[in-house]
Amino acid sequence: MYCEIPPPIQKLNFLFPFIRQYQKLAEETNGINDVFQDNGGKLLQVLLITGLVDIPGREGNDAVDKKGNEYELKSVNVLLTKSFSTHHHMNPTMIAKYRKVDWIFAVYESIELKEIYLLTPEQLEPYYTTWETKWHNDGGKDINNPKIPLKYVRSIGRLLYKMEDDGIFRETELK
Amino acid sequence: MYCEIPPPIQKLNFLFPFIRQYQKLAEETNGINDVFQDNGGKLLQVLLITGLVDIPGREGNDAVDKKGNEYELKSVNVLLTKSFSTHHHMNPTMIAKYRKVDWIFAVYESIELKEIYLLTPEQLEPYYTTWETKWHNDGGKDINNPKIPLKYVRSIGRLLYKMEDDGIFRETELK
Repeated sequence: MYCEIPPPIQKLNFLFPFIRQYQKLAEETNGINDVFQDNGGKLLQVLLITGLVDIPGREGNDAVDKKGNEYELKSVNVLLTKSFSTHHHMNPTMIAKYRKVDWIFAVYESIELKEIYLLTPEQLEPYYTTWETKWHNDGGKDINNPKIPLKYVRSIGRLLYKMEDDGIFRETELK
Repeated sequence: MYCEIPPPIQKLNFLFPFIRQYQKLAEETNGINDVFQDNGGKLLQVLLITGLVDIPGREGNDAVDKKGNEYELKSVNVLLTKSFSTHHHMNPTMIAKYRKVDWIFAVYESIELKEIYLLTPEQLEPYYTTWETKWHNDGGKDINNPKIPLKYVRSIGRLLYKMEDDGIFRETELK
């Protein structure tokens, strides 16, 4: 018997029809028009697990639940960094907007969603206060992307979801 | 008979094992550690078709062929724009680097690779000359991401690859 390892392009041809289906699922459920840009294919996992729907065309990743409540979505790849990015021009206007919503924090290892946390405005208030104070002390200069440590999110947030060893996605209740 | 459309999360669970295989293929063949960021999963198609290998850790998308020749890789999603981005700090140092290599231009519609073109340094020289002149005339100020129109690439470049109607990827010769 003669065996040969199939060349990568054969694997590509085997897998790509499923990638097309994944793209179609992302587009149809959440208007994500390119899963390979801006974490689109990762965001899809959080949205389908939580039942949230992406609000397209907004700055940042906002989502809305069935009752019309809005959420701010953040994600981190723990293989690359241990804190969440926020906004490249943080100022009192942004903070006022943030204070009105719960935040959803998604924790990934590469493309694998490992955990989802929910933090309320009260739980995030220490950061808002700090940023606001800094902004005023710096004479009204926008803060470039202040971080929220994963450690803080894990210590105080509500764990909405944890990937089980079987790697199967399961829906979760937000409230 | 009672039929129900399966919820999106079931589709996610069906498809995600193939996504994992796709990520593994990207990692093993080209060190792409997240297909859902920076067009990783789109770049993979060009690399496997041309036999080029991604050079990791480089600024921009550089790739190398089996003989050690380097290439500059550019891509465009024609559903969003009709010209290729180049570099956010274009200056004589970058241009000198660019003059040494052929460029590969990949044309996508959303996630679908439609065409690949190769342009030689001679074919790109009109742009290099224009950028260099502009840089000197502006007193040495870097040019922010000058574009190369898809129209120019299609008119003068060598078509290396065109997706056929069956959507099957086929390897192509670079030279």
